[in-house]
Amino acid sequence: MAKVGVVLSGCGVYDGSEIHETVCTLLALDQAGAEAVCMAPNIEQAVVNHLSGEEEAGATRNVLEESARIARGNISDIAKVTAADIDALIFPGGFGAAKSLCNFASKGPDCEVNPEVARLVREIVAAKKPLAAICIAPALISKVLGDDGLTHKLTIGTDEGTAGALKTMGSEHVDCPATDFVIDSENKLVSSPGYMLAGSIKDVAEGVEKTVREVLKMI
Amino acid sequence: MAKVGVVLSGCGVYDGSEIHETVCTLLALDQAGAEAVCMAPNIEQAVVNHLSGEEEAGATRNVLEESARIARGNISDIAKVTAADIDALIFPGGFGAAKSLCNFASKGPDCEVNPEVARLVREIVAAKKPLAAICIAPALISKVLGDDGLTHKLTIGTDEGTAGALKTMGSEHVDCPATDFVIDSENKLVSSPGYMLAGSIKDVAEGVEKTVREVLKMI
Repeated sequence: MAKVGVVLSGCGVYDGSEIHETVCTLLALDQAGAEAVCMAPNIEQAVVNHLSGEEEAGATRNVLEESARIARGNISDIAKVTAADIDALIFPGGFGAAKSLCNFASKGPDCEVNPEVARLVREIVAAKKPLAAICIAPALISKVLGDDGLTHKLTIGTDEGTAGALKTMGSEHVDCPATDFVIDSENKLVSSPGYMLAGSIKDVAEGVEKTVREVLKMI
Repeated sequence: MAKVGVVLSGCGVYDGSEIHETVCTLLALDQAGAEAVCMAPNIEQAVVNHLSGEEEAGATRNVLEESARIARGNISDIAKVTAADIDALIFPGGFGAAKSLCNFASKGPDCEVNPEVARLVREIVAAKKPLAAICIAPALISKVLGDDGLTHKLTIGTDEGTAGALKTMGSEHVDCPATDFVIDSENKLVSSPGYMLAGSIKDVAEGVEKTVREVLKMI
């Protein structure tokens, strides 16, 4: 049974993992007979009230504890996971991927990536194991691989501003609809737009399921 | 397009809505061309740390705000929803259904149901619109309909203790596997065990999808 790491960043689209994208990832893995190995960094995050859309001044939550909500408690600190533990790695999206896994949401192309996240991405790519990123998560992959001078291909859908930022960081950007994915065979990268483009959850499910199947084929 | 109410109770299996059951419900509705109308009570809840499994002493969160995480902000206070607004109503499970929508988790068959939840359940049943409950959520339906002296049929899977409590409250209980559902045609009730029995998310998805299809057929 393939073991596939799933990197979470909290629980909720505006300050954590996008819940639909994450659950669709876990579902597609289980339906394909693969085991999901959920993980998240053990760090604090700011909190957005998802009813009002406003940040709650001064409030913080722990990313690993909040991610555990989606994983039903079955989750590890990413600092304790190495590429040797898993056959592939998937990053669902949500603002947590751009606020906690890296700070692309505030710093754009000048962002920094969480050190443990960057370490695991480099280990996976070096080990020639497949790596997938959904929605805004390709931004952090772009930063890590761009800094390493690795020529690579990703999509975040069709948003010109975000696509431009990825190019600045060193990616070739390929436009892609929500229900499809972009593949970089050389580096075993798969990316799909998720809610960067999807009109509703069924489109997310389709794009994510295709992404997961492609990842499993590459193992 | 059918409008189907989905009653949430927070965000996370141990103190809120079970996230996988809820997302599978939203996905099945969207795939069937129905519109989900998410709602939750505007009340406070206790908080369980999903990493440790322990309750956080003194901490509270707002059920409507936490539910908004799964609904991506598109959610209403249940107090503002009537049976006239929707064609059917579905309750995903999770401990929130037994701690916030009612207090079955602490009081068993002597539980009380949140007044707005009980009101909407009664309105839907009186209007002969379909009503579905997943996982532990049938407990609150049992309490409302049992108190009204209505003969009805539900499942929570095969757990003898919980099934016994439903019988005490007035239900006929029918054993059922996670990937199937129980139907009460007379009252247009559909119930399915979800994580009361499911070994993994793919079984939840199968049971929930069948439940949603049955609900939509009954409209």
